[in-house]
Amino acid sequence: MPLVRVSILKGKPPEYRHAISNNIYQAMRETFNVPEEDRFMTLTEHEESDFAFSPTYLDISRTSDLIMIQITANSGRTLDQKKALYARIAELLVKNPGVRPEDILINLVEVAKENWSFGHGIAQYA
Amino acid sequence: MPLVRVSILKGKPPEYRHAISNNIYQAMRETFNVPEEDRFMTLTEHEESDFAFSPTYLDISRTSDLIMIQITANSGRTLDQKKALYARIAELLVKNPGVRPEDILINLVEVAKENWSFGHGIAQYA
Amino acid sequence: MPLVRVSILKGKPPEYRHAISNNIYQAMRETFNVPEEDRFMTLTEHEESDFAFSPTYLDISRTSDLIMIQITANSGRTLDQKKALYARIAELLVKNPGVRPEDILINLVEVAKENWSFGHGIAQYA
Repeated sequence: MPLVRVSILKGKPPEYRHAISNNIYQAMRETFNVPEEDRFMTLTEHEESDFAFSPTYLDISRTSDLIMIQITANSGRTLDQKKALYARIAELLVKNPGVRPEDILINLVEVAKENWSFGHGIAQYA
Repeated sequence: MPLVRVSILKGKPPEYRHAISNNIYQAMRETFNVPEEDRFMTLTEHEESDFAFSPTYLDISRTSDLIMIQITANSGRTLDQKKALYARIAELLVKNPGVRPEDILINLVEVAKENWSFGHGIAQYA
Repeated sequence: MPLVRVSILKGKPPEYRHAISNNIYQAMRETFNVPEEDRFMTLTEHEESDFAFSPTYLDISRTSDLIMIQITANSGRTLDQKKALYARIAELLVKNPGVRPEDILINLVEVAKENWSFGHGIAQYA
């Protein structure tokens, strides 16, 4: 059920954007108890004036290659699962498409199981 | 107060996009206790490489016409209200703009009443 | 940690969009206990058919200059802090870029501290 929204600066080729999507999915499969094929993501590219980030917050040196990832998922994951997810997303994105680990921002939004319909207007998890 | 974000693949005409917006509003009016004129929605079109979805998850056969709908609303609705909302959104979108019922994904994010300002910098619901 | 998403109608110059971002950050600094440099925001411009809003809801007279602001932040702020945030955002945006106070919609989504990673795949707040 995760619904993933990725925001980046404009200018990356499709393969690069595809790799982001693939690897977030892969990391969720491995660490977050996400079923096979449970994959729903959008990516949005922004102009420079529409993509603001801190290059220093928490003493982490970020560049304009920053990837902002917002994941809406069911609540109930443990702190350990969340830590594992963040670590694995970073690990995989560093490999492909080749992002600096400093340039990965992740935010989780948690919702109830009954807050999803995956088709046919039915609350499949309720 | 719902704030609705719709994501679709690029290429649909304005009337099609308008019908999505109109009918989600209509469904919220009928099933979710949403006041008249309480209507705030954005729609974003994505390139193919930026719109990832499963064509099979939960044995629901989705196509690239998938409509991803994320609704942020006040918490407090019952499970029955949520089920009614999903069903009515699907029913209306199938009629107009003519979407397959498999191609409708809905996610609710719930927040507190005090988490809204509708103008003038005032928390109108608090 | 706030992650801010701003949605407006297409057609405003970069300086205008920049002023929105700067002033939301400023208001969060002043009222919401947000650390210096904790600034992560995206802005999206929409076509007319993709940007639906009520021109009258709650007897507030809105125009197509409406700015929809969705802020995801840690939970724990008091009602007074939220009210102060809304008021200060409105105050600053009225000054620059010069928005009508009726044209400012704000929504907060609250999450747990452990729901963030600001780089390196680490949950810095957990």
